[in-house]
Amino acid sequence: MNPSHSPSCDSDEAWMRRAIALSRQSLYITTPNPRVACLIVRDGRLLASGVTQKAGGSHAEVMALRQARENGVSTQGATFYVTLEPCSHHGRTPPCVDALIQAQPARVVVAMADPNPLVSGRGLAKLKAAGIAVGGPLCAAEALEVNPGFVARMTRGTPWVWLKTAASLDGRTALGNGASQWITGPQARADGHHWRARSCVVLTGAGTVLADDPQLNVREVETTRQPIKAVIDTSLQVPESARLFDGSPVWVFTAGGDPAKARRLADRNVQVVRMPLDNGRVHLPSVLQWLGQHDINEVHVEAGSVLSGALLQAGCVDELLVYLAPMLLGAGRPMAELPVLHDLEQALRFEFHDQASLGGDVRLLARKAPAWRSLLDAISAVAGA
Amino acid sequence: MNPSHSPSCDSDEAWMRRAIALSRQSLYITTPNPRVACLIVRDGRLLASGVTQKAGGSHAEVMALRQARENGVSTQGATFYVTLEPCSHHGRTPPCVDALIQAQPARVVVAMADPNPLVSGRGLAKLKAAGIAVGGPLCAAEALEVNPGFVARMTRGTPWVWLKTAASLDGRTALGNGASQWITGPQARADGHHWRARSCVVLTGAGTVLADDPQLNVREVETTRQPIKAVIDTSLQVPESARLFDGSPVWVFTAGGDPAKARRLADRNVQVVRMPLDNGRVHLPSVLQWLGQHDINEVHVEAGSVLSGALLQAGCVDELLVYLAPMLLGAGRPMAELPVLHDLEQALRFEFHDQASLGGDVRLLARKAPAWRSLLDAISAVAGA
Repeated sequence: MNPSHSPSCDSDEAWMRRAIALSRQSLYITTPNPRVACLIVRDGRLLASGVTQKAGGSHAEVMALRQARENGVSTQGATFYVTLEPCSHHGRTPPCVDALIQAQPARVVVAMADPNPLVSGRGLAKLKAAGIAVGGPLCAAEALEVNPGFVARMTRGTPWVWLKTAASLDGRTALGNGASQWITGPQARADGHHWRARSCVVLTGAGTVLADDPQLNVREVETTRQPIKAVIDTSLQVPESARLFDGSPVWVFTAGGDPAKARRLADRNVQVVRMPLDNGRVHLPSVLQWLGQHDINEVHVEAGSVLSGALLQAGCVDELLVYLAPMLLGAGRPMAELPVLHDLEQALRFEFHDQASLGGDVRLLARKAPAWRSLLDAISAVAGA
Repeated sequence: MNPSHSPSCDSDEAWMRRAIALSRQSLYITTPNPRVACLIVRDGRLLASGVTQKAGGSHAEVMALRQARENGVSTQGATFYVTLEPCSHHGRTPPCVDALIQAQPARVVVAMADPNPLVSGRGLAKLKAAGIAVGGPLCAAEALEVNPGFVARMTRGTPWVWLKTAASLDGRTALGNGASQWITGPQARADGHHWRARSCVVLTGAGTVLADDPQLNVREVETTRQPIKAVIDTSLQVPESARLFDGSPVWVFTAGGDPAKARRLADRNVQVVRMPLDNGRVHLPSVLQWLGQHDINEVHVEAGSVLSGALLQAGCVDELLVYLAPMLLGAGRPMAELPVLHDLEQALRFEFHDQASLGGDVRLLARKAPAWRSLLDAISAVAGA
């Protein structure tokens, strides 16, 4: 982003929207950190900007201050727009709040409060104590779209989970004989890889590995980071020759299986993780707990109808990422195997929040309204502010 | 429409788009005539406008000329924007071309040629011969959206047929026990009634009448005209007590049944029409032929999965009108019963051309690309021009 060529904005909201758009530049790289952007503005002019680098690298505020320094501009009296409340604690990097105070801005506006209830509001309080005006949360819902996983992990201890499915207009993900290449077109498939790329873990089931032998990596979009691959495999039946065991890290969640096989897999960067059983299957909420404990923010599920149905029934899916092709298949595989319902009140309900055209296909995003609402609540209130 | 308060347009295309928008005001009333609008414009100012009245009433050009006369403005030297080539033949009303020539415009621009290959271009030729400049077809695709049925009947002898369905995101139109009230919400249902209201015939199957006893009339939108109701009922099994036999005209297409029952129904404004059999069911293409011969432009199908599947397989569906609710039902009734496919090449393919949010639901429109293309070709070329 070249500040000298950027149009100026005329309101806090417009600047914050621009910061949020910029934060999307780091969608693929920052995990387990959130994607954050910072704009430094004075007299309606953008002085400098920065986005969070990959984990262990600099935060957005530091990047923006560095750019200002390189451009030889003073940040004194400027307004900082940051898409997340600046950190006030020592993590892998020093607290951003200290760098901000040193920069002597007149004002700092944030899009969302720190979702961690233990530190929410502390960054802003420290700025205030230093005589800096603070504003926000501003455009919190838009900002949350960029970091639902980080906020979910911080507030409930588990990642944000979306279930990706590609189907015909009548809801079939494959013919009865399993044929599914291709129902949706290249643009929808590339978009699916964008969602893989932003996730921390791509999760599937042993059935899909046995049937399709997928690679599960990101191919259709450019990325410097590959998500971790994970398989729910209750009895450790995935073949050691599976293509997804390519030397990159893989997690296999199992409730049984051969310890010798697990040891052999370990030599190939595959961690076999024992999980409790629940009705003959790995207990799925425990998998999400484990993922949260291992710093996983976003989980991209691409599975068959059995695991998809089990995840849905267990309440483990926050969002549906559905690609629909304009064709009818009649009979075939369903999106999810669910128990027979006797009343529409029993339906699994979501809320549409986005629709888009992708080549000849349509993408629909729907999420669980209460899950989203609780994340939004967590970042909209600034504790102690 | 009050011309004095209308903003002015600055191009032929902008005026034509406005005329097309105006023509939608007569969507519910003109059948079997097309919905047409006419704008009279001079020096960038709208002088008068008109839309086609109900069948037997005045055409758009005559309505616009009448408004000009009432407003005391001369149409001499003006430009007329008409969404369909003016008629050159005596129908129930005198030819509009004669009225136009009398009005002495400088120019007449049309959105589409007359789709009837026998008269296409004649209206424009007659205007040219009278020394009036002619333009168009202009914005033909947009104009076709308003009159696909009229163009289909004129060019191929059969109506334009859309299949309306309301389903969960995983393509279920009802639970296994038949429960379907309500999958979609009130806004989607009202929109469905808008589509009923613009159609000439609402078509269903005997199975739906037996299971749901629907009224099949337009209730959720205001209309002065109700479409004709029609039932595919191979063995004339609909009960005489069915709610759709309410005294308004109903057509029942059958290949058998009791002649005495047919006679009793006739007394109640129900015409029982004999159709050839095809594999144990009424031959569906013959029904469409019959409808075309009876001046039916647009058919709105609202049927169960069996008849829907049969119509789709017989190539009798031009367009899918699909309402999707953000819920998953798992098992349940499919949109259409189709034969088991062994290859994705056998899928029934459509093209998305519109998507919209309706309350919490989504509406997707998809149509058969070749069917649409052939209508567009027919109105885009002006024979003999």
